[in-house]
Formats: sequence, C-alpha cells, structure tokens
Amino acid sequence: MSDSVAIEQEAPGGGRRGRGASGGAAARRAARTGGGPGTQLTYIKRQINVFEVLNEEGLALIEKNAETVLEEIGIDFRDDAEALAMWKDAGADVKGERVHFPRGLCRSLLKTAPSQFTQHARNPERSVQIGGKATVFAPVYGPPFVRDLEGNRRYATIEDFRNFVKLAYMAPSIHHSGGTVCEPVDVPVNKRHLDMIHAHMTLSDKPFMGSVTAPERAEDTVAMAKILFGDEFVENNTVIINLINANSPMVFDETMLGALKVYARNNQACIVTPFILAGAMSPVTVAGTLTQVLAEVLAGASFTQLVRPGAPVLFGTFASSISMQSGAPTFGTPEPSLVSYGAAQLARRLGLPFRTGGSLCASKVPDAQAAYESANTLNSTLLAGTNFVLHSAGWLEGGLASCYEKFMMDVDQLGMAQKLAEGVDLSENGQAMDAIRQVGPGSHFLGCDHTQANFQTAFYRSSIADNNSYEQWLAEGEKTAPQRANELARRWLESYEAPALDAGIADGLKDFIAKKKESMPDAFT
Amino acid sequence: MSDSVAIEQEAPGGGRRGRGASGGAAARRAARTGGGPGTQLTYIKRQINVFEVLNEEGLALIEKNAETVLEEIGIDFRDDAEALAMWKDAGADVKGERVHFPRGLCRSLLKTAPSQFTQHARNPERSVQIGGKATVFAPVYGPPFVRDLEGNRRYATIEDFRNFVKLAYMAPSIHHSGGTVCEPVDVPVNKRHLDMIHAHMTLSDKPFMGSVTAPERAEDTVAMAKILFGDEFVENNTVIINLINANSPMVFDETMLGALKVYARNNQACIVTPFILAGAMSPVTVAGTLTQVLAEVLAGASFTQLVRPGAPVLFGTFASSISMQSGAPTFGTPEPSLVSYGAAQLARRLGLPFRTGGSLCASKVPDAQAAYESANTLNSTLLAGTNFVLHSAGWLEGGLASCYEKFMMDVDQLGMAQKLAEGVDLSENGQAMDAIRQVGPGSHFLGCDHTQANFQTAFYRSSIADNNSYEQWLAEGEKTAPQRANELARRWLESYEAPALDAGIADGLKDFIAKKKESMPDAFT
Repeated sequence: MSDSVAIEQEAPGGGRRGRGASGGAAARRAARTGGGPGTQLTYIKRQINVFEVLNEEGLALIEKNAETVLEEIGIDFRDDAEALAMWKDAGADVKGERVHFPRGLCRSLLKTAPSQFTQHARNPERSVQIGGKATVFAPVYGPPFVRDLEGNRRYATIEDFRNFVKLAYMAPSIHHSGGTVCEPVDVPVNKRHLDMIHAHMTLSDKPFMGSVTAPERAEDTVAMAKILFGDEFVENNTVIINLINANSPMVFDETMLGALKVYARNNQACIVTPFILAGAMSPVTVAGTLTQVLAEVLAGASFTQLVRPGAPVLFGTFASSISMQSGAPTFGTPEPSLVSYGAAQLARRLGLPFRTGGSLCASKVPDAQAAYESANTLNSTLLAGTNFVLHSAGWLEGGLASCYEKFMMDVDQLGMAQKLAEGVDLSENGQAMDAIRQVGPGSHFLGCDHTQANFQTAFYRSSIADNNSYEQWLAEGEKTAPQRANELARRWLESYEAPALDAGIADGLKDFIAKKKESMPDAFT
Repeated sequence: MSDSVAIEQEAPGGGRRGRGASGGAAARRAARTGGGPGTQLTYIKRQINVFEVLNEEGLALIEKNAETVLEEIGIDFRDDAEALAMWKDAGADVKGERVHFPRGLCRSLLKTAPSQFTQHARNPERSVQIGGKATVFAPVYGPPFVRDLEGNRRYATIEDFRNFVKLAYMAPSIHHSGGTVCEPVDVPVNKRHLDMIHAHMTLSDKPFMGSVTAPERAEDTVAMAKILFGDEFVENNTVIINLINANSPMVFDETMLGALKVYARNNQACIVTPFILAGAMSPVTVAGTLTQVLAEVLAGASFTQLVRPGAPVLFGTFASSISMQSGAPTFGTPEPSLVSYGAAQLARRLGLPFRTGGSLCASKVPDAQAAYESANTLNSTLLAGTNFVLHSAGWLEGGLASCYEKFMMDVDQLGMAQKLAEGVDLSENGQAMDAIRQVGPGSHFLGCDHTQANFQTAFYRSSIADNNSYEQWLAEGEKTAPQRANELARRWLESYEAPALDAGIADGLKDFIAKKKESMPDAFT
C-alpha cells in the first residue's frame, strides 16, 4: 500500500500515539502550491438559535404517543436472546422477540447517557464535541458506486475510499473523517473493514467511525483503535462513533445489536438511527413519523445504557420521503425537513446529542436538482441544531453513489453553513459606525479604513462559485460548478500529504491487519 | 399584438372589471392536456415560526445606531425641492439636500402606515395579503438579458416578457405577476412600461407591479389600473405595488422619489428598498449593513407618510455581498442571509411588511452553483418571515438574465417552501397512531389504509426532480434538471390560455396605450 509508505516517510515528528502530529504543516504546504485548501476549522460552536416547528403541546403529544407505541405495540429485538434477557431484567414485558416497555422506562434508563461528550482524534486539535451547541460535519456514508473525476459511474474501489478520506482530511469545513465514505467493492467483504479503518487512521488525523456490519468487525475496530491511541486511552475515552440503524418499522436486528453491544461495552459512541423512508417505513405524515422515530430511538438508545450505563449514544434520524408514484426515495423536500426540525427538538428534550441530515439528494448527477435538494437538507440540518451531520459531502443518487465533484461543492457549502452559524457580530467593529460616518451619503465603502481592516474575513470566500462577469466567465471557458469542482478535487488530491504517524503505530496497524487477513478466506457476499 | 386578440376572443365571461373571471378553467384545461401546472395556490399563510438572529439587546443597539445615522449623518434627498420642503415642515433639519432627522421622527411618522394590507388582483381569488403571516412570491425583476429555451443568452424582448408573465400566471406557487420580469429591450424605453403593464393586466389575473422609472410612467400605471379596476376601486384600494430603491449609501434620487410620490398619493404601495452590495454600498459587516438599511428605510418609508398618511409601505432589503477579490456581487452566501434575518426582525418591530430575498444567484447558467445559491437565499427568505418575495423565480447572473429553465426549477422550489410553511399537522390523522398500530414491527406502510387515504397530499410532488433509479434515468435519456425544466416550460407555454377579460376593458387599455404612444417619439436610452 503506497499510501502507508508515504505516511511512514512523513512520520518523524509523530508522538507515541500520534497525538502530537498536526495536519497544519501539510495544509500550509498545500496552500503554498496553490492547490490546497485553507485553514482547517474546528467543529462548529453554534452562536445562532435553533429553529423549531413544534410547541410544547405538540412535543408532549408526540412523546405520549411514542410511549404508547413502546407500551402497546412494542419493538422487536430479533435473533438476540441476550438482548431480550437484558430487557426482561430491566422490567420490560418480553413476548417472543417483541419487547413492550412500561411507560417512561426507556426515558428513565437514558438518564445515565451523557448529553455531550468528546470524540477524540489522534490529533487533539481535531477532537470534536458531540452535543450541546456543537455541530460536526462528516462525509457521505455507504455508497457502493462512485461518480469519478472522469465522469464515469462505476463500482467504488479502495482507491476511491482512500481518495475520499484524503479529501475529507483536507477539507477545512469537514470536521470528521466519517466511516464508509464509499464501499470498496474490490476488497473482500469480510476484510473490507480493516482497510477502511486503516485508511481513516493513517490518511487522516480527524476522528472516524467504526465498522458495524458484524460484531467481530466492531471488535477489530476497537482493537485497531487501541493500537492507535493506546489501550488505556481507549478504555477511558470515546475515540469511535458508530452508526446503528434501526430496521424500521420497530425492529432492531442481530447485526446492529451485535455491533451496538461491542461499542457500548467499550464506552464508544452509538448513533441509534431509524432509517426512514416515510410512507414505506413509517406513516406518510410528519407527526406519525416523529412518533415512530422517537419510539425506536428510545428503545435502541436506552438499550446502550443496559449494556453500559454512561455509554455515549446519539438520537439519530435519517429522514426521507418516497415518491408516491414510484416508491423511490426523495430528498430535499419539505416533509423530511420538518421531521429533522421536530426530531432535533425531541432529542434536546431527551438530553441526547442529535444526528440527522447532510447534503442529501436523489439526483443522478451533480446538477441543479442535486444542489437544491442538498441545500434544502443542509439548511434544515444546521438550523435544527444538529450535532452530528453524516452525509455532509459527496452524496448522490439517494446514497448509491459518492461523487467527487459533489463532494467538493458540498464542502464549499459546509463552509458557508459554518460561517452562518457564527451569527451577527455586534462588537464595535461589527457595528461599523465609523465606516458609515467616514463614507457618508453617495460615496462607497470599497476603500474605506473599516473595509480595508476587515477585508480578509468579512465575507465567506467560496472555493467553487464563479462570481465574475458573463464575459469573463465566457473567456475562461464557460465552466459549470461541477467542472470547477472537478479541477479543485484533482488539485487537492495532487497536493495531498499524509499527517505524520509514529512508525511503531503504523507497523502495529499493518501487522494487525496482515494477521487478521491471513486468518480469513476471501468473501465477496 | 396577437396575445391581446387571443384574450379578447377568450373574454365572453369577463365581468365589468374582469373581477368575475378566473384562471381556474384554463388551468384545468391545461392540466388535462398533461402539459399544464397544478392547482393555483393562494399566498402563503405561514404556520411556522420565524427564525431570528438578533436578541432584544442587539435589535435595540442597531435601532439606536440607525437613529444616530439619521440625526448626525443624515440622508440626501436629491433634486427634489418638494421633498426637502416637506421634510422641513415635518421638523427635520435640512441643509442643502441633506436631511437630518431628530431621533424618533421617522419611526413616529410610520405609525400611520398599515402593518398589513391587501393588494387586489383583477381576479379576487388572486388578491394577496401583504404583511402579517403572509408570504407572497413574485418573479424575477429587472434583467436586460434572457437565457432562452434554445440555450442562447441574448437581450430580452417583449415576447420574452410576455412569456414570463404567462409562466408566472400558470405557476401554482407564484402568487404575483411581478413587474419587469425582463427588460423588453426591443421596445423604446419611453414606451416600454405601457406594453409591460398591459401584459400583466391582460395575460395574467394575478396582482402586479407598476413602473417606477419616471413619475409620468407611474402616472400611466395608475391610469391603466383605473381602466382595469375602475376609478373608484383604485381610489379606495391598493392594486399596484412598486419597487422604490434607495441609492445606497444614504441617498434617494429624484427618479425614485418622483415615482414614490405618485404611488403614495394614490394610496398605492411602495417597497422602500436599500439596494445593497455590502462592502461597496454599505459596511462589510452584517450589523453595520443592518444599521444603514434601517436608517435608509426609516427615511424613505416615513416619507411616504408625509405624502399621504396611511399609504401602504414595505420595509425592503436587497442583501448581497461583493467578492473582495473582484468586486463582483455574490449571492447565497451566509452574510446576506444574516442580513435578511436581522432586517425582518427590524421590520416587525417597526410594524411594516417586509420584503427581501428570492432565488438569487451569481451563476451564469442554471447549474449547481445557481441552485445552491438560490436555495440558500430562499430558505433564509422564508424562515425570516418575509412578506413579499421579489426575484422568487428565474433570476440568473446576479440579476442580469432571466432564465426560462431556472424559472421552472425555482417554481418547483417555491412549491416546496409553501409546503414547509404549513408546518406539522398534529390532527388525529397527522398523528397516524392507527397506521402504526395496523402495520406494526417489521412490515411496511405502503399499502396501509392511512397511506392510501393520504396518498395524494402527503408529500410535495416535485415537477422537476427525477427520483427514479439510475437505470431508468439512463433509459430516459440522462436528462439533467435544466433539461427537464426546458421541456416543462415549453409544455406550459404551448398550453397557455389567457384569463378572460371584459372586451370593453381590453379595448380601453389598447386605446390608452395607442394614444400615449402616438404622443411620444421613440427613445432608446
């Protein structure tokens, strides 16, 4: 793996846990070449309000209905006798695989879950707060296909995976390396997680997500984290965050429960997320969907507290609707936005960090449809007060494809969202009364002292948008936004330099993976 | 003018003022052909909260600073001795053309301005409320160029103008016919307004905007409105809304003041709008821009009350920033969104209806840049609680071009915004507990009774988005959103049928225009 070699050569300054290393030097070098991104931003500390769509009465109604679902209808915990036994011990009424929860039980169990926590990165400057007024952007998760820089739509490979990890590492407004940024279909299914986790650990120094496709893969993730961070650090800190989807409606299956138990037992974070295409996996109405989402999250999230009280857990929502004509999922439409706003309110009342949204779209290409839908999703995600935003960049085709061009365009939009979240500066400099006095009626502010002094930081500077005149745009080749994004992605990838990593850790990870792989036959299903 | 002939032939059912006529029949006919739009929607009655970025302290600070600007720096009222005399009489300190306002004077004068009013359309079903919880979408205003359905970028013609009026008439989520939907550059400048107003009055039955480019053109607009609505109706009601831009920073010029006086004297509505490219026409900071905007609106809007107490007037804001590299205007960036949110709060405190936003963008083509920027602008416009939204559809190139494809895509987005504004349905049907009970764990909601019963209205149905599978999208020709929008625009224009209009009124308008045109030489500058 040439990437690893490059990393080792870069690694002289890396500390024992790589915790002294920083991406700053590489970013500065990249910036000097003219090809790289700007300064890395820390996670968003929101200065703006949240937008809310439900009042106290509405929230109480949905909470009451969710408790009714939990008590009367119940939730299935399938093919997991251990989970059923734990629920029985906790006081639930278990009939077969169906668990009925006394009113208030789940909410009561969740009192031990932290309302916010730190997910540590190997570079401490990149550690993120999950919860409170923090918002963390993580890239697209899950697509088996890519739309590549040559304009082809094809199965994703491990090289694509590494490329997206590199781009996310370089993107100033992406705070997290994410998880399955695409499915490396060229690697056997049972070994894939090892290469993916390795890429996150070595090609980036941002926090990352663990494997959830089998309990033993979750165990491998924890084991590799211990090599990277040290055993003691992992035992005492959260260094992995993990996507645990409910099998909506109202089912948790053994795969997800297995991974959940591994991570919760190790004090690592679970994002319990009903994956909802409303109209198929939940009712067609917003309030009905919110009720079911809340019931499923209450059941799944409180289960983490049965496994280990105090284990960090998020209230997750993946909100989409379906086309009532074709059954296809739709994104960026008003109903999922209302679900996100409402679910964020329910999460705050529950005292859990909240995950939803991203830059979701149904379009097959990075065109206007993709952008409208993504912007609608991102705006509602930000204003809802979402704490962890998966699918922030690169998502195309309802999540079937990771798109390089879309990734770069989304990253630009994330930067705008981060600036918006800073709110209005009301300092004396922000008030700018001296500028207004100096300029006066009928003149202009272009050259005034205040403008000069604030020139660099006043306005968000887009990396993609062309604001030039029509004539200049013509002269420069009539490029569209995806064309400019394509060029930018190529420049970033060319100028990529891996963050330093201690050679001992790098070897440890390689050895672990080599041994694991030796012990397994290749499996492609 | 072939359009007028068609209208007259369609007109048997038109009442004296055309007030009995309805676009419903034409829309139904169009829908049957498969080419037309859906049911016309009335203006938005917002059920959702507004989003606010300033607290009480911040608002009071900006209001104090704006009063300081008005008192100490003052506002120029240029080349209008009458205006200066009126200000002197009202108690302002007038030095040359500079007017200094005692603190609180403007705010006090604005007490006579209505916080909401009705702008009447010739079809009463299309009359709109301006202010309160109403939001009205009007199309793009002002571009000298079009990007046409053949993909050419060229000067706009009166035929383009009529086409955009037709499309706005047919668009379910556009509530207003707007004003200069593009500049009909093939008509002499001094006669242009007559053909434009005529198009709005005859090709649409939605409310419209008047000419503001010269006082006599404003007079012509009022005269034509009296032919359409009857003298008495116009004297007692608001039937025209008009865009009065401040010449920022801190100047009102004779052209705008002349039009303002005509409309205010006739009890017609003025939208007093500082046209701001922040960094050039206002300070580079949000708070500084808000301060200047408030000062300019206070001066201009209160002037309408000197002209005629009680005349309807709006607090307008056109918020944009400039690129600090090139000086070019930028749109859809975070700073203008913050300005819109803040200005809406200031307008509500002042008790005036508020105008901002739209679907603004700097892109030269209807690509992803255009869509991201437009969606960002529209989201902040809607959540700010904006009452009148100019440039809702069709805007491209920073307002230099009206684009047919963008128009159709924006219309689709406006429909989504309108649905979002309905908020969450908490009725028993909305709660959907029966559906959750009926379906239960592990099944799906596709065929359940509740889904069937809510099938038609549950989710917003996009007219542009392709949500099909990649394979189906391939099979259907790999069309992008603008290509689908192009086809839809053609279908709408083909199926357009004019709303009925009383033949006597149609003749009256034609006679008025013919006489006016005879009295003028052609002027092209």
